[in-house]
Amino acid sequence: MNAITEPGLNSSAIASREQVLLALRAVLPPHCILSREEETRPYECDGLSLYRSVPMAVVLPESEAQVQAVLKTCKRLRVPVVARGAGTGLSGGAMPHAQGVLLGLAKFNRIKHVDKEAAIAVVEPGVRNLAVSEAVAPFGLYYAPDPSSQIACTIGGNVAENSGGVHCLKYGLTVHNVLKARVITIDGDVIELGSLAPDAPGLDLLSVFVGSEGMLGVVTEVTLRLTPKPALARVIMASFDDVEKASDAVGKIIGAGIIPAGLEMMDKQATQMVEPFVRAGYDTEAEAILLCESDGTIEEVAEEIERMEKVFQQAGAVRLQVSQSENERLLFWAGRKNAFPAAGRVSPDYYCMDGTIPRRRLGHVLKAIQQMEIKYSMRCANVFHAGDGNLHPLILFDSNIADEVRRAEDFGAEILELCVEVGGTITGEHGVGMEKINQMCVQFTRDELDSFMAVKRGFDPDCLLNPEKVIPTLVRCAEYGKMHVHGGALPFSDLPRF
Amino acid sequence: MNAITEPGLNSSAIASREQVLLALRAVLPPHCILSREEETRPYECDGLSLYRSVPMAVVLPESEAQVQAVLKTCKRLRVPVVARGAGTGLSGGAMPHAQGVLLGLAKFNRIKHVDKEAAIAVVEPGVRNLAVSEAVAPFGLYYAPDPSSQIACTIGGNVAENSGGVHCLKYGLTVHNVLKARVITIDGDVIELGSLAPDAPGLDLLSVFVGSEGMLGVVTEVTLRLTPKPALARVIMASFDDVEKASDAVGKIIGAGIIPAGLEMMDKQATQMVEPFVRAGYDTEAEAILLCESDGTIEEVAEEIERMEKVFQQAGAVRLQVSQSENERLLFWAGRKNAFPAAGRVSPDYYCMDGTIPRRRLGHVLKAIQQMEIKYSMRCANVFHAGDGNLHPLILFDSNIADEVRRAEDFGAEILELCVEVGGTITGEHGVGMEKINQMCVQFTRDELDSFMAVKRGFDPDCLLNPEKVIPTLVRCAEYGKMHVHGGALPFSDLPRF
Repeated sequence: MNAITEPGLNSSAIASREQVLLALRAVLPPHCILSREEETRPYECDGLSLYRSVPMAVVLPESEAQVQAVLKTCKRLRVPVVARGAGTGLSGGAMPHAQGVLLGLAKFNRIKHVDKEAAIAVVEPGVRNLAVSEAVAPFGLYYAPDPSSQIACTIGGNVAENSGGVHCLKYGLTVHNVLKARVITIDGDVIELGSLAPDAPGLDLLSVFVGSEGMLGVVTEVTLRLTPKPALARVIMASFDDVEKASDAVGKIIGAGIIPAGLEMMDKQATQMVEPFVRAGYDTEAEAILLCESDGTIEEVAEEIERMEKVFQQAGAVRLQVSQSENERLLFWAGRKNAFPAAGRVSPDYYCMDGTIPRRRLGHVLKAIQQMEIKYSMRCANVFHAGDGNLHPLILFDSNIADEVRRAEDFGAEILELCVEVGGTITGEHGVGMEKINQMCVQFTRDELDSFMAVKRGFDPDCLLNPEKVIPTLVRCAEYGKMHVHGGALPFSDLPRF
Repeated sequence: MNAITEPGLNSSAIASREQVLLALRAVLPPHCILSREEETRPYECDGLSLYRSVPMAVVLPESEAQVQAVLKTCKRLRVPVVARGAGTGLSGGAMPHAQGVLLGLAKFNRIKHVDKEAAIAVVEPGVRNLAVSEAVAPFGLYYAPDPSSQIACTIGGNVAENSGGVHCLKYGLTVHNVLKARVITIDGDVIELGSLAPDAPGLDLLSVFVGSEGMLGVVTEVTLRLTPKPALARVIMASFDDVEKASDAVGKIIGAGIIPAGLEMMDKQATQMVEPFVRAGYDTEAEAILLCESDGTIEEVAEEIERMEKVFQQAGAVRLQVSQSENERLLFWAGRKNAFPAAGRVSPDYYCMDGTIPRRRLGHVLKAIQQMEIKYSMRCANVFHAGDGNLHPLILFDSNIADEVRRAEDFGAEILELCVEVGGTITGEHGVGMEKINQMCVQFTRDELDSFMAVKRGFDPDCLLNPEKVIPTLVRCAEYGKMHVHGGALPFSDLPRF
């Protein structure tokens, strides 16, 4: 018998795998339950493949009533539940619990309703991000948040992780583009969060639900805000012979009161890695390139592109190239969006970091990372949501060489240390999941973590929903030996090994 | 002895007024405590003067340590605490508890730090909204949310109520312009919510805190996002001979992909009420006017104003007037922002409603309100955040005539009923406070209200912070006899009498 103990504080309840499967079979048809090892193995990890765990069972419900029944069953038996969208997440948020049920939402894949006039779409959580924009394109609308994984990732996962994308500088993160969510609690209750009105009465539980990484409930329906497709969009590719100059240019664009539709930076390592793969037309001689998009009416874009070009020239750009067609614009972005697959192509392994720093420190941090490349004898390609100060350094290594794993880990830890040192955070848009749970002890005080836990327990007192992720326990932080002192020095040399 | 019973579920603890004052005197200097009736009376209500209650004591702490001490004291003695900014709120959120302490934050009035480059300001909660924009004006920046009360209302109150304003269509509500908040919990703990990074790790407790109407904690420091002052802003005043045409024009503007910096509607009752008071230059012959602002660079504004004018012409505007100077633009807005004082000038009493409806139903609702004016023999001036679908009908009455109070109440109830009927909500931006607590039973299911309460209790298990407001108890809803059935008909004839 596989006995499970409850994740969380007490361990009084125990249910066997057989009991759980029996109970699930009472509420789901057989084809909605996967329990043989060869069926459950494919769900062992999400995009963070360093961590794997095969769940006790995978359920793929087809109706909201079935989701309710599954959650009620898990609550009754005190079994952990981990919800999963497309499994493209990068922080292990959808990694199964070995003594738990994985709740896949792949069958919730309908776009239920589009209201052109109100510019909203009501979709199920298993709908792919890009499928929304494709479906509403005939109405001149699109769904603005565009994570690089948008071909595959689903709206439910986007809601769980509060996904961003290259356009979130101007159009916001998922939380800014979701109006309502229909949520099933661990008790099986249906609650509707949010409103079509600008400020819903009562507490704004929608905002706390978005980005809660599966800890508060399971979403079964999401109302998305759609954005009118601009008449025109053009991207400037600006080349710089120095990363610090490119970084300064980012600050100067924002400082000039311009909010670009996207403002991304790639260093030479990144462009040289991507270019042979995508043929995006990048300037691979430049030390860094910026991709800066303007969208709007034809007149607005013309005027804004002119202003942007002026700022880049004053910031010392050595070459400026403006996309001359929609195809070329998409090609410029395709290179950026395929940076991760490109890394997989040139290196056996890569480790994607996700830190944030104040924009004005971009140049300083990039120079420091260049020094670290020498120190660790290891390459690091840098792609940044520069406008947001969100870094994605890609450390390239080969896990077959034992020492390289360790060196990559040290390299990553030193980058994170630097992020905090310059006033940033150790995690940006990829979520905490299980990857960064230890660093939460560093980022927050115990009182702050207790506030998170109080809200978590308000929804899920037994901590059955995606347990042992995001919010570290007191014991974990004690073992990890850290608690954040605001403004204090951080002993980062003890950062966890990944 | 004035005995107090704990608000909420149990009433085991009792503390006398003398005990409370004694305990407060132990942690605050004498000049920070007001306890005589003539000192506490001025705090008996906020902007919703229909409800009044004199608190046991008013405390005006001068340091964060004092706020912590007050909250710890109240927690220990199980005494309700109501925080108060400038007291301009319209839903009774800052109305004192008769057996509680009123915690005034008037002395927290420093702008602590402005970072021009990062476009942020760190301010204390007692700083007035407009004072922020005035202080950062030399840097070409301003604080975007601009409630009509911005001369008087404070940032702390804005945070509590998630205040909007005429520019929130483009620039968002308070929640979109606050990056961080330093919060004291009822336990006296200091927690920092939010982050300067685009997506903070962990749960987004900042968003749930903003708009929580004093139920979760007391803010002592707020980091605001500042917005670059546009080079130019101009307002179109568009006149219509029919409210429905004006309403349709609102939908057409948004439908054309334009997001105006502001888009407000006033009907003839409103313009005729305001014009003699403000001399804003309004077209008082029109059945409705729209004020539609464009801001940006000189070229952007020229281009956008042209597009807006075209839309208005096609929508049947009978007259278009564009502000020819910054003074004229401010004058156009001054009329709108002084609608409430103007109502106070022409009528002994007015009752300001705050409902939201889908934008496309504006015309229908306005026509219906005109019919109600006849039915109730009572005037109603309508000022709307039209772009947001947020209505502020001002029902004009004379409370000295007994029948008029009752008629105004019925009139208001019928407007709210209509808002829900057309798919809107019974409250928009003014908060629930105590004014609309009964209607929360109508707007939400019990499971949804329980979710609010679970989060509330996560922060404040004894329900000492602003008790008996916002979230109705099960008993209250049972007595009120209503619980919302989604999509069901609402028996609004039983709406509470104000």
